Amino acid sequence: MRVGIIGGTGDIGEGIAMRLSSVHDVSIGSREEEKAVSTSECCYAAVTKLGFSCSVSGCTNQEAVDRSEIVILAIPFRHIEPTLATLTRLEKKIVVSPINPMEKKDFFVYAPPPEGSAALLVKKLLPPGTSVCSAFNTVAANKWRLFSENLDLGVPVCGDDPDAKAKVLELVRSIPGVKGYDAGPLAASCMVECLTPLLLNIARFNKMRDVGIQFR
Amino acid sequence: MRVGIIGGTGDIGEGIAMRLSSVHDVSIGSREEEKAVSTSECCYAAVTKLGFSCSVSGCTNQEAVDRSEIVILAIPFRHIEPTLATLTRLEKKIVVSPINPMEKKDFFVYAPPPEGSAALLVKKLLPPGTSVCSAFNTVAANKWRLFSENLDLGVPVCGDDPDAKAKVLELVRSIPGVKGYDAGPLAASCMVECLTPLLLNIARFNKMRDVGIQFR
Repeated sequence: MRVGIIGGTGDIGEGIAMRLSSVHDVSIGSREEEKAVSTSECCYAAVTKLGFSCSVSGCTNQEAVDRSEIVILAIPFRHIEPTLATLTRLEKKIVVSPINPMEKKDFFVYAPPPEGSAALLVKKLLPPGTSVCSAFNTVAANKWRLFSENLDLGVPVCGDDPDAKAKVLELVRSIPGVKGYDAGPLAASCMVECLTPLLLNIARFNKMRDVGIQFR
Repeated sequence: MRVGIIGGTGDIGEGIAMRLSSVHDVSIGSREEEKAVSTSECCYAAVTKLGFSCSVSGCTNQEAVDRSEIVILAIPFRHIEPTLATLTRLEKKIVVSPINPMEKKDFFVYAPPPEGSAALLVKKLLPPGTSVCSAFNTVAANKWRLFSENLDLGVPVCGDDPDAKAKVLELVRSIPGVKGYDAGPLAASCMVECLTPLLLNIARFNKMRDVGIQFR
């Protein structure tokens, strides 16, 4: 599949790119094209070093949209509105939100917008005809970026368009060690986004690192 | 430890009793003492049949409180207020809420009370000096009730009183195959209670049964 990662130079975006680029054609997008090119070179080096083939390139965010059928918004919650305002031609794309709105007090708290979740806010801001799914919410960036580390994780996927959700599940399941689960309609995304502050709290209070989740 | 299970004749209570009674002294409480005695007999038969020792008895809910240091509220969300209104002498006990407030629409949705979570509502209704923790929220009753089934699960525990939380974590970790995790203060319980509707949705949309969770 052709996958574009908006904000792909951040930790989460780089982690997702690292895991997808040995199986798919990945475009890492950034506001700064040079940074995207540099991230894609690091990704290529790390993946090919281990003997895998790799298809990855760096470009602007808009080019990452234009080249892809699935567009992953690897951006912080507060960047959703300004970033989407700079992008066009998202209609007919599958847009994936791995975004988790949260606040840090003495511990991490889920802090969804009035729409109910980041995924529902993304849907509201996009033109009709765009299929939105939530997925990759619980990516522990450091673990995903270390391509040599095996993953053993479950990734829930929410969405209202069955065809789009099936494609995103296929994308998730193409990553070795990762199981994809249909977690219901887009309105159920709040329960997935909420996992990340829980995992961060568990990491913090149990002195663990890069805590992931598995369903069994 | 001496553990009382309020509403212990329900599926969840029975599941928890089954797993704890081979290691601890468990009192299964019920509004109807006869039902509690009958559940305790089933539990005793199932556990001893597999060659384990078992300490379990059935009694009223109030007796389950009086006999125990840890009191688990294995009741549905809507029973919290009426049940707590019938109980006295909960001060100085450790009260554990495994309760998940949720609604079923086309899918399961987390539906916390104005207090923010079931655990915070429980705390509000109890006399000062009672230590409240949330734990056992993601118990898949059918799996826990089958004592012969091995568990491989993570159980997050929230609470504000460090000593009480340490005891509850010890209780959780005494169950073979179960790992206990400190998930932060009681105010973080919403993120734990929210797991259960997520797991029920995953079970439903992926044709799975008794879905549990593990952290890794």
